[in-house]
Amino acid sequence: MKIRLALDAMGGDFAPAEIVEGAKEAVESNPDIEIILVGELDKINAYLSKKPAKNAKNGTNNISGTINVLASGENIDMHESAAKAVKAKKDSSIVLGLDLVKKGKADAFISAGNTGAVMTAALFGLGRIKGIDRPAIVVTLPTAAKPVVLLDAGANPECKPKNLEQFAHMGSSFSEKLLGIHNPSIGLLSIGTEKGKGDDLVKVSHDLLEDASINFYGNIEGRDVSNGTTDVVVCDGFIGNVVLKTMEGLASVMFNELKEVIKSTTRTKVGGMLLSSSLKKLQTRLNQDTYGGAQLLGVNGICIISHGSAKKKAIKNAIFLAKKSIEQGLVDKIKLEAHL
Amino acid sequence: MKIRLALDAMGGDFAPAEIVEGAKEAVESNPDIEIILVGELDKINAYLSKKPAKNAKNGTNNISGTINVLASGENIDMHESAAKAVKAKKDSSIVLGLDLVKKGKADAFISAGNTGAVMTAALFGLGRIKGIDRPAIVVTLPTAAKPVVLLDAGANPECKPKNLEQFAHMGSSFSEKLLGIHNPSIGLLSIGTEKGKGDDLVKVSHDLLEDASINFYGNIEGRDVSNGTTDVVVCDGFIGNVVLKTMEGLASVMFNELKEVIKSTTRTKVGGMLLSSSLKKLQTRLNQDTYGGAQLLGVNGICIISHGSAKKKAIKNAIFLAKKSIEQGLVDKIKLEAHL
Repeated sequence: MKIRLALDAMGGDFAPAEIVEGAKEAVESNPDIEIILVGELDKINAYLSKKPAKNAKNGTNNISGTINVLASGENIDMHESAAKAVKAKKDSSIVLGLDLVKKGKADAFISAGNTGAVMTAALFGLGRIKGIDRPAIVVTLPTAAKPVVLLDAGANPECKPKNLEQFAHMGSSFSEKLLGIHNPSIGLLSIGTEKGKGDDLVKVSHDLLEDASINFYGNIEGRDVSNGTTDVVVCDGFIGNVVLKTMEGLASVMFNELKEVIKSTTRTKVGGMLLSSSLKKLQTRLNQDTYGGAQLLGVNGICIISHGSAKKKAIKNAIFLAKKSIEQGLVDKIKLEAHL
Repeated sequence: MKIRLALDAMGGDFAPAEIVEGAKEAVESNPDIEIILVGELDKINAYLSKKPAKNAKNGTNNISGTINVLASGENIDMHESAAKAVKAKKDSSIVLGLDLVKKGKADAFISAGNTGAVMTAALFGLGRIKGIDRPAIVVTLPTAAKPVVLLDAGANPECKPKNLEQFAHMGSSFSEKLLGIHNPSIGLLSIGTEKGKGDDLVKVSHDLLEDASINFYGNIEGRDVSNGTTDVVVCDGFIGNVVLKTMEGLASVMFNELKEVIKSTTRTKVGGMLLSSSLKKLQTRLNQDTYGGAQLLGVNGICIISHGSAKKKAIKNAIFLAKKSIEQGLVDKIKLEAHL
């Protein structure tokens, strides 16, 4: 099945170079993928070595049959206020890219840009799925045994119990469709595994989740996230974001410390050399970029939010995540669950 | 300076064996430490090989000059409801041990038992320091460069801004007195470093902390915890507990994965052997037990809460943490700050 993806060429710390590279690698490895790079023409062309795009004013311009370019205007910066920027910069790569999805000219949008702006633009541009009050950011985390799905990873710092219930349904759909897990188990992140432990939000949410048509495991604790106790972890966006970033930070610190240990003596240098390729594999497996980044669930379309520090490999993985989400009918599955 | 510590011999997964062993090692390595083991006499005596204690009914019974035993009655189990258990079991090791501190017969209490019960008994037994509305659990986390102090690690799942402000003062005192850090920097854990990012609690707390007589750094994110961006991390007890356990879980998963990598081939086995002693050092450094466990700050006395899985080394470190807290006048420092 042919799919067409709108990719924000201007978002992220390494845009547009790494974005364009990621797009090229993705289309080269898969002829079914067509990409529309949305961004400043001259900057994109500098990295699209063959057949530079002609001056196209807000029209797509075919480059190589599988990569097209849509010219955008003023960019939304990484630290700009989301609501204002989306309102003011109607021809930014983020707003234009999501517009392609809205109009059915693209099947998904991918950006490594300003997360708040992408969320806001997606909410306005694509709208919410009926039955979902608050879209949530889902991430796939590497754990001991298998990847685990966590949501909300930061879209909603404050939540109500019904939001968490909806997150549970969406997380379940994501785990099933994207990771192929049958009847995924859902854990409610708390401080104490017994029912009744936690804050007020968790206590009321626990009751809702018990009655929901999901495979509810019960409360889980922080250590269950990396242990992979459940297939899905549900929490509010404040805690989810802190957990995600704490894990990123600690994993990075530990690999750096390991490198320092290896560098310290001749003996350990030799040891490190012998372990080198295996350690690299482990680092790749424990790197979240391997899973293609975050996805905004609950909006009426596929919207992938890559890490601001995404390089070509992460962008390529994000493209494949978008592709699989489309092929698996993730949005329709969420619509179905939300209507039950 | 001679110090006398009450140690709960019945608390934790490896009680009393590892508790008694930890006590023995501590007093052997430091003649200034006197320990009162509180627990079931016959069980304690089984592990105190020399000079078994005579039948002492609720009276201290000298064993070797530096370890004494106070007989306790029914134990509080790890999963018992804290409030009920503390009320019903007046002669449990936890209640009796804290009573020794209250009566001035011990300078600190240490337990690896039911955290909720220790907190409740400490609150009733020792009382709060004037000016501290809610005591908090402080932990010392290993990071890239230096240990970082985090509170609240689980005493208060729901907090008000003034609680976080008081935590900031207590964390500052702890960092200064226990880790020797001059004018420690205080980070407010949030999702986004800019002022105004986060939930309502963080937004209001940010204003309070800006006006407080502390070295306030501003908002920090999850990854700053393990990066050691600030000396102290302040958050509510729900998020603090989840962060603490997420870090514990991930560190353990990563070391296990590393072991699997090393075991996988002959080549990597040799590499692992060459790295072995350095990796052990790293694991020790990144293990929270190295820092002696958690401490309940804000009560009128020193109360250390060890990990439920604490073995003799962790108990010994908890004893040294108690010793240093006493010698450095931590409680008086917090009283002074709370009155400002």
